[in-house]
Amino acid sequence: MRGFSLNQATTKRWPLDELVPGCAAAGVEAVGLWREEVTEYGTEKAASLVRDAGLTVSSLCRGGFFHDTGWYDENRRAIEQAHTLGTDTLVLVSGGLPGSSRDLDAARRHVGDAIGALVPDALAAGVRLAVEPLHPMFCSDRCVVATLGQALRLAQPYPAEAVGVVIDTYHLWWDDTVWDGIATAGRQGRIASFQLADWITPLPSGVLLGRGLPGTGSVDLRRFARAVRETGYDGHVEVEVFHEEVWSRPGPEVLAEALAGYQAAVA
Amino acid sequence: MRGFSLNQATTKRWPLDELVPGCAAAGVEAVGLWREEVTEYGTEKAASLVRDAGLTVSSLCRGGFFHDTGWYDENRRAIEQAHTLGTDTLVLVSGGLPGSSRDLDAARRHVGDAIGALVPDALAAGVRLAVEPLHPMFCSDRCVVATLGQALRLAQPYPAEAVGVVIDTYHLWWDDTVWDGIATAGRQGRIASFQLADWITPLPSGVLLGRGLPGTGSVDLRRFARAVRETGYDGHVEVEVFHEEVWSRPGPEVLAEALAGYQAAVA
Repeated sequence: MRGFSLNQATTKRWPLDELVPGCAAAGVEAVGLWREEVTEYGTEKAASLVRDAGLTVSSLCRGGFFHDTGWYDENRRAIEQAHTLGTDTLVLVSGGLPGSSRDLDAARRHVGDAIGALVPDALAAGVRLAVEPLHPMFCSDRCVVATLGQALRLAQPYPAEAVGVVIDTYHLWWDDTVWDGIATAGRQGRIASFQLADWITPLPSGVLLGRGLPGTGSVDLRRFARAVRETGYDGHVEVEVFHEEVWSRPGPEVLAEALAGYQAAVA
Repeated sequence: MRGFSLNQATTKRWPLDELVPGCAAAGVEAVGLWREEVTEYGTEKAASLVRDAGLTVSSLCRGGFFHDTGWYDENRRAIEQAHTLGTDTLVLVSGGLPGSSRDLDAARRHVGDAIGALVPDALAAGVRLAVEPLHPMFCSDRCVVATLGQALRLAQPYPAEAVGVVIDTYHLWWDDTVWDGIATAGRQGRIASFQLADWITPLPSGVLLGRGLPGTGSVDLRRFARAVRETGYDGHVEVEVFHEEVWSRPGPEVLAEALAGYQAAVA
C-alpha cells in the first residue's frame, strides 16, 4: 500500500495553488482532485502545478450520474481530464433513481450498460473506471450502487484494468459482508481507490456533509486498512471528508489532522 | 395477508382514546402501539380500550436496546406488556454501538446473546420477538442490525414462534438481496411484522423523522407487498411513518392518507 493522499474535498476552500505547495511542504506525495475545481483552475495548468511540485494525482472525482442528459459525452470528458492530469483512476458515482422512477433494478441495469459503453474510452486513455458504492442513504438521489457487492457485480463483465471499485470506509463500514467483498475485489485486482472517512452522528440535514475526519467516529479504520493492505493493494490511501466545520478551518490544520488520522489507521 | 393497521407513531399526537375510536370509525381493524404511550395511558386500560372497540393490536414497539443498563429486565417488562395488550409481536430495535466502541461484530454478537436470553420469556408469554433491521444510517446510534440477512442470521438459532423479523420497507428498500431475504423469511415462517413507509429526500437533521407516507417517495411498495404476500404472510400491514409535518396534522386526515397509500400498495 502506498502512502497518504489528500482528497481535495477535505479542504474544499483551500485554493489549489495553495493546497499543492501545502501538501508538498508536509511531505505528502499525492492528491485526489475534483473536476469542478480542476476545470475552474484549468486542467493543463493543474496538471503542471501538481507535477512541478513533485506530487501525483491519486484519483479524479468524479464521473458517473448516468441518468443525466449528455452523460456519455460528459464522462468521456472526465476520462480525458483524468488522462490529462496523469491519474489512472476516475471515480464514478452512478446517480440515483431517474425522475420519479421507483425501478431500482432498471436504474442499476442502466448503470451497468453505461459503464460498458465507457470501457473502450477508458482503456484507450489508460484510465480505470472506479465504481464507488455510496452509503444506502444516498440510494434514491445520488447513487443506486449501495454496496461493494453491487459494485463488484457491475465491474465483473469487464477487465480489471478497465473497471475497478472504490473502498470508502464511510460508505461501507456498516456492512458485515464488506470483508469478503474487499478480499474478492483484491483477488480480482479491482481495488482502484481506498478512501478514509469516519462516521459521526447526528447526521446533518441532507446528510451529504456528515463525514468525519479519520479517528473521530465509529468506523474501525484499522480493520479496513488491514483488510485492504492484505489484498496487496498498491495504491494511495485518500482521506476524503465533507464537513462544513472541517471546511471552515485552515487547510494546513485540517491536513495535519487528516495525516494523523491516516497514520493511526494504517499504523 | 390481513388488512391495514395504523401504527401509533404515524399519528404521534393523536391521543390513544381518540385514535382508537377514530380507527374503529374508519373501519380499521388493528393498531400498532408504542410502549411509552401505552405506559402513560395505562397498559390494562389501553388493552380494554382497544378490545372494547373491536380492534386488535398488531404489534408493540419496542424492546431491544440491548447495550443499555438493565436491558434484560426492561425487555421482560416489554414482553409482559405485549402479552397484556394481547399482541403476539414485540418489535426489537437492537441499539447501536455501546459507548465509544467500534467493534460492530461484538455488538452484533451481544444482540444475538440477548435475544437468546429472552427466548424463554417470549415463549412462556406467547409473544414473538420481532428483530427489526434498521436502515444502515442508524447503525452506529440506534441499531447494529442493518440488513434483513443479519436479522435472519440472528433469528436462526431459535424457533420461528419465538424469534421473527420485521420487514419495514423504509429500512430495506435499497437492498437488492431483500427479495431473496423475504422469500427465505417466509419459508422459515419468520415474518412477524410488515411495515410500510416511503423514502423521501432531503433527509432532515438527525434523519429519524424523514419517513414519508406510502406513495410519497422512492420505494416500490407494490413489489414489497407482492413479495410478502407471496410468502403466505398472514399478519397485518402496518403503516408506520415518523415525520414532523405528518405529526402536525389531524389524526383522521393522516389516517385517511395512510389508508389510501396502503390500498395503492396492496391493490
